[in-house]
Amino acid sequence: MDKLFIFDTTLRDGEQVPGCQLNKIEKIQIARALENMGVDVIEAGFPVSSPEDFASVVAISKAVSQPIICALARCTKNDIELAAQSLQYAKNKRIHTGIGTSDEHIKYKFHSTKEEILERAIEATHFAKKLVEDVEFYCEDAGRTDNEFLAIVVEAVIKAGATVVNIPDTTGYCLPQQYGEKISYLFNNVPNIHKAIVSTHCHNDLGLATANTLAGIANGARQIDVTINGIGERAGNAALEEIVMLLKCHGELAIDTGIDTRKIAAASRLVSNLMNMPIQPNKAIVGRNAFTHSSGIHQDGILKNPHSYQIINPKDVGIDTDTILLTARSGHAALKHRLNLLGVEIDAEQLDTIYQDFLVLADKKRVVLDEDILILARQKNTSIKSLKLEYLQATSGLGITPSATIRLALEGKTYEASAQGNGPVDAAIKALKTIVQKKMLLHEFTIQSMNRGSDDTGKVHMQVEYEGRLFYGFGANTDIVTASVEAYIDAINKFLSREV
Amino acid sequence: MDKLFIFDTTLRDGEQVPGCQLNKIEKIQIARALENMGVDVIEAGFPVSSPEDFASVVAISKAVSQPIICALARCTKNDIELAAQSLQYAKNKRIHTGIGTSDEHIKYKFHSTKEEILERAIEATHFAKKLVEDVEFYCEDAGRTDNEFLAIVVEAVIKAGATVVNIPDTTGYCLPQQYGEKISYLFNNVPNIHKAIVSTHCHNDLGLATANTLAGIANGARQIDVTINGIGERAGNAALEEIVMLLKCHGELAIDTGIDTRKIAAASRLVSNLMNMPIQPNKAIVGRNAFTHSSGIHQDGILKNPHSYQIINPKDVGIDTDTILLTARSGHAALKHRLNLLGVEIDAEQLDTIYQDFLVLADKKRVVLDEDILILARQKNTSIKSLKLEYLQATSGLGITPSATIRLALEGKTYEASAQGNGPVDAAIKALKTIVQKKMLLHEFTIQSMNRGSDDTGKVHMQVEYEGRLFYGFGANTDIVTASVEAYIDAINKFLSREV
Repeated sequence: MDKLFIFDTTLRDGEQVPGCQLNKIEKIQIARALENMGVDVIEAGFPVSSPEDFASVVAISKAVSQPIICALARCTKNDIELAAQSLQYAKNKRIHTGIGTSDEHIKYKFHSTKEEILERAIEATHFAKKLVEDVEFYCEDAGRTDNEFLAIVVEAVIKAGATVVNIPDTTGYCLPQQYGEKISYLFNNVPNIHKAIVSTHCHNDLGLATANTLAGIANGARQIDVTINGIGERAGNAALEEIVMLLKCHGELAIDTGIDTRKIAAASRLVSNLMNMPIQPNKAIVGRNAFTHSSGIHQDGILKNPHSYQIINPKDVGIDTDTILLTARSGHAALKHRLNLLGVEIDAEQLDTIYQDFLVLADKKRVVLDEDILILARQKNTSIKSLKLEYLQATSGLGITPSATIRLALEGKTYEASAQGNGPVDAAIKALKTIVQKKMLLHEFTIQSMNRGSDDTGKVHMQVEYEGRLFYGFGANTDIVTASVEAYIDAINKFLSREV
Repeated sequence: MDKLFIFDTTLRDGEQVPGCQLNKIEKIQIARALENMGVDVIEAGFPVSSPEDFASVVAISKAVSQPIICALARCTKNDIELAAQSLQYAKNKRIHTGIGTSDEHIKYKFHSTKEEILERAIEATHFAKKLVEDVEFYCEDAGRTDNEFLAIVVEAVIKAGATVVNIPDTTGYCLPQQYGEKISYLFNNVPNIHKAIVSTHCHNDLGLATANTLAGIANGARQIDVTINGIGERAGNAALEEIVMLLKCHGELAIDTGIDTRKIAAASRLVSNLMNMPIQPNKAIVGRNAFTHSSGIHQDGILKNPHSYQIINPKDVGIDTDTILLTARSGHAALKHRLNLLGVEIDAEQLDTIYQDFLVLADKKRVVLDEDILILARQKNTSIKSLKLEYLQATSGLGITPSATIRLALEGKTYEASAQGNGPVDAAIKALKTIVQKKMLLHEFTIQSMNRGSDDTGKVHMQVEYEGRLFYGFGANTDIVTASVEAYIDAINKFLSREV
């Protein structure tokens, strides 16, 4: 197995994205998660860009000890000096300096010449090498740089002391074959190439970041620049989780990343939450649906043998949930499997009856939950408990103590209570909790308007934790306070129905 | 230029995803957008799976005339008959039938043998061919099927009348080279391969769907199965927008898709909204940030020459916005550029002063908006209008008419008003509108809890339209009603500051 070094730039290329900026404490949290997961290098920031960034690199250097801490610097003395200063407390440190090498960058950005750029590259590497032992050099826009000149720059910076040479496809333009050939060209045309590690840095503008990174590895690169969830400038960078799992799935490539893959899901959620960057449900490896099988054909296959439609065990990336969702596309096998899991044993004839009701419900409700099919299975049983909101009054505002009065019906009786809270929903839930005395914890809570205008219906989604399990609640009302309370009660009814 | 056929399966592989189910009217809307964009084939559904799906294929067949309408069917008479029936009104129709050909599928799913599977494939193709002229055959899990058997099946179904053979990497397991070699193997080992079109169908479980599709094209495939936004089972399918733009960017591949790329952004939003599938900001081509440059280095380069960091003109995919966002990573050049765009001319010294204030603000505020820098530029000007919420009381609930009383301060004076509404926020905004008499329309409105528990702070994001422009507002408060009103006022202050 060949060792592949994982260079994570979530905190630099990722953090420079609009809206993703983190404070120092958040950055340390992510840096620790990366260390924990086993990344080799953490690019912690671009110290010259702002005093905050400088301070963050210092703080991360102190907080994290296993990985190399890396700071970015353009090819100027000031950038490099600040980078070195910011790394003073790092146990293992690296300066990442570089300059644009493509014609586009040399002509239009630097108004310079190849000779001048080469000179600056060598000078900067020499200077950085005086301050730290480990110097990585990036040839910006290498993806569009002609290979001949690229080879000259790479040879020169390796001679000047660079330990790693980074070949970024800055604009995300390369096709996998082109990028692979570029790396191969360097191995064939740079005499001292084996004295340094070659690194990939691929952007996803055409959806090819993962494939380009793989092409780089196949042609000899042994470090990859990646980010959690593939965040980064524009369409982002190659995603750590995709490459790591791809290499794990394809043992024949004989590449070892040393990453503890079971930490992937948690790190992905952490980055998404702190950086306020949602992950789309169909994101590979870490999306909500990445391991969810919904079509009847697939579900049937998965039940017969997980391997039939699944190449990764969700547990390997730290996900531990049932991956078969019941929808109108689910077949008999999936429904029976789920009922059995829920402890309901039925014969073929019963299954057929329930399946017809299930299809009708699924056409209406899209995703059918465990609670729904339990209700279908017990249709004739009228003893199922259910809580109903009969009356609610909530008052809140600025300069007002939020308060609420609530009336609930349960098994033919009504109960009333009032309470104060931080806001109208909190007050109503506190009042409700004096009636339903169970230990419930509200997790996710989002409200979205359905169409347009302030008089629109609000959709409320909630997750309520009860006895270690999460129950989903939904409410829809033009009044967001009422919709929220209805969603909470919907979640409660889910677990009440299980207690029958 | 070689013609590549675009087979869109947003309405079949995409629609079978949990939570994505559409009603007939929504499906027609998407089918029309696909027709409008120029796709060659629309896979409209899997008629046997539910009565709703059957009806949708019928409806789409009637609504759309240019593209071929395709219906999915397993290798059974019943599936194929229903598919043909559902297509009765289609001007151009295709049945898409097929069966699993990998050892995993044959053994564990069908408990069958290669001989039996081959028999069923031939029989189904013959039967489908009696009902329609255009028959596509898929070899499910072709990605893991041994090439020798795959070639036998492909040759047999072409002889039986298949016009298109589909080679799905059903589990998203293949590496680009493997998938490319598989397609190449078929061209070299299937005698009648040139009598049919070879199609790719790549899943994105390892982040390689786009690259695998490209590898298929490079080796002779001339139809690709894709979806808008790459939605689909699990991590989804290859994304239409990625392949189409990749081929447009790389003219040297000499492949023509015939897609009107300027329709991409609108189609992407339509699918995302109707299917309730958010697009992550860093999604290639169609993500919110796909063309947004935030780092100082990149912004500086882009201002000197767009080509320096941009390979696609956003206008080519129907996006028409400024792509430079001001953050703590932005340099002098970007700030000056934006101020100039806003009509503010300043000299280098003034720029320097404003830039320092800008950096402080950017460190606090993450993304700095036009309104913010206008305020910075006019710092000494105290005449800027600003609305302030002084008091708010809102009451709502079940069995209650929502009402609100509001007190606002503007330019030293205070104003008070009350109103009723559909909910507490609507009531408060109606009261506010009796004071601020401007034509404002609320667009997006989302509320999210920050951490956990019902006593948590709610973050409110809003978009308010005023004079044809959208203004963003933000509010955070433990009371979601107050936070909502604060967000609305924040948005109003944005456009008031422009009117100075």
